[in-house]
Amino acid sequence: MREQFYEYIQQLQDTITTELEAIDGGVTFMEDLWKRKEGGGGRTRVIENGNVFEKGGVNISAVHGELPEVLRKQFGVKQGDFFACGLSLVLHPKNPFVPTVHANWRYFEMYDETGNIVTQWFGGGQDLTPYYLFEEDAIHFHTVCKNACDTYHKSFYPKYKKTCDEYFWNAHRNEARGVGGLFFDYLKATSEFTLQDRYDFVTAIGNSFLESYLPIVKRRKDVSFTKTHKDWQEIRRGRYVEFNLVHDRGTLFGLKTNGRIESILMSLPPTVQWKYNHTPIKNSQEERLLQVLANPVDWVK
Amino acid sequence: MREQFYEYIQQLQDTITTELEAIDGGVTFMEDLWKRKEGGGGRTRVIENGNVFEKGGVNISAVHGELPEVLRKQFGVKQGDFFACGLSLVLHPKNPFVPTVHANWRYFEMYDETGNIVTQWFGGGQDLTPYYLFEEDAIHFHTVCKNACDTYHKSFYPKYKKTCDEYFWNAHRNEARGVGGLFFDYLKATSEFTLQDRYDFVTAIGNSFLESYLPIVKRRKDVSFTKTHKDWQEIRRGRYVEFNLVHDRGTLFGLKTNGRIESILMSLPPTVQWKYNHTPIKNSQEERLLQVLANPVDWVK
Repeated sequence: MREQFYEYIQQLQDTITTELEAIDGGVTFMEDLWKRKEGGGGRTRVIENGNVFEKGGVNISAVHGELPEVLRKQFGVKQGDFFACGLSLVLHPKNPFVPTVHANWRYFEMYDETGNIVTQWFGGGQDLTPYYLFEEDAIHFHTVCKNACDTYHKSFYPKYKKTCDEYFWNAHRNEARGVGGLFFDYLKATSEFTLQDRYDFVTAIGNSFLESYLPIVKRRKDVSFTKTHKDWQEIRRGRYVEFNLVHDRGTLFGLKTNGRIESILMSLPPTVQWKYNHTPIKNSQEERLLQVLANPVDWVK
Repeated sequence: MREQFYEYIQQLQDTITTELEAIDGGVTFMEDLWKRKEGGGGRTRVIENGNVFEKGGVNISAVHGELPEVLRKQFGVKQGDFFACGLSLVLHPKNPFVPTVHANWRYFEMYDETGNIVTQWFGGGQDLTPYYLFEEDAIHFHTVCKNACDTYHKSFYPKYKKTCDEYFWNAHRNEARGVGGLFFDYLKATSEFTLQDRYDFVTAIGNSFLESYLPIVKRRKDVSFTKTHKDWQEIRRGRYVEFNLVHDRGTLFGLKTNGRIESILMSLPPTVQWKYNHTPIKNSQEERLLQVLANPVDWVK
């Protein structure tokens, strides 16, 4: 399974970066190959200062070795080796009317002392963070997510949509990071689903990504915007930074286990502002966004 | 003691904000009084878009009530009430040649079930974060810190200087946040020092603040700078954000115990950049800063 999934994310990275370069039209991804001292490595691809994408990364990695202490504690095991691989992407568009998007699909294995697999699971998801809310964009994104889920089980979309709203909750701000999407973890083989079923599901979600996001980019990328719109985008990007550095388990896990810092923090936006106690004008588009972020919406029924 | 110290930080806030307004010459501090639902409140003073200070805050607060769960765990107590008050300041100058400064001086009391004081202590310190390194500035700042310490005990400066270097270590970047200063905590009454001695020491440190920082501001605030200098300042401000949101105990404590978010996060810089894998030019001033931050320096012997 590890070879099968790693093969998949390699191909998916190629597909996604090729399509993103085509839509950007200005710059291409730069590539960094890196190795992890304790085992494994990755292929980081970053885009900066494009026509459409101000900054973004589409990274894959496959790491293995002794389970870091923080994971041993989390899983309640004394020792063991692990393997983990996945694709992570974050795209920060230049135009404030194009939402930021994040996605991650990953596979994890743990081994006993003799190298046998003790447990193995998939995780991942994708979520959308608009700076100006267009309901049709949120509905489109969620519709693609739901359709990709529904093929596998009718319970998946409602469950993973709810988990996504809960996970991407910026608790200290009492607001959602964005309009959500999907979030799932610990998808193991069960009596109902084989590990291959899990693989089929996660890869179907991965395959649906471009369809969920690119039509939104195409609709909004050439809409003209002012400095006021850009300022608001940069202020809201501040909330994105706050979520990633304060709450995001993946980021903190990476920072505390000697991950490759520049690959992890490619998720941080290119330009950000923090103003003291910034409050949007009454009945503005900016205020409307905050109202929606305060109470997660069921975008598709 | 709580009245005595709160009286002191009220006056110190007035003194500091008055002096900073005089040196800025452009804007004045805005003031927000706030109350904490569970008990107490604060007086937040923020400056934005000044001639000298692009953003900054000089805040005091005095809060009390039931000990939050996170502190009960930290102190290993089942229940109890607390009182805490302090002054916190962060100043982000506009000119990249003027360093950012942070300071905090605080007093804490814990009570038993009948309201008697179980334990009480002072904490605090100040540290300097330059974007371009002028050794004379770092030496000046540390000299004032050392002189203020030496009046009380020769051991204080070396000890609290070292603690500061250790505390403001941006571990995931393997570099210091800045050139350090002082950091001390849990200064309780001992056989050697009364609580009044501790008060005298902490207030002497507080009183030395303007002398430690203002001469540096005056020296650098009118030096002309280019977009390249400003970009570097904004990239380095990103490290400041990373430290505060990932490592700073005070910030995380505030975020996780329902503190007043806008008063806590006034510490975040006004404009920030994250570039992927940014590396300064060989033998540049920017590279020189990174070399110094990688290995804390003894600025005064």
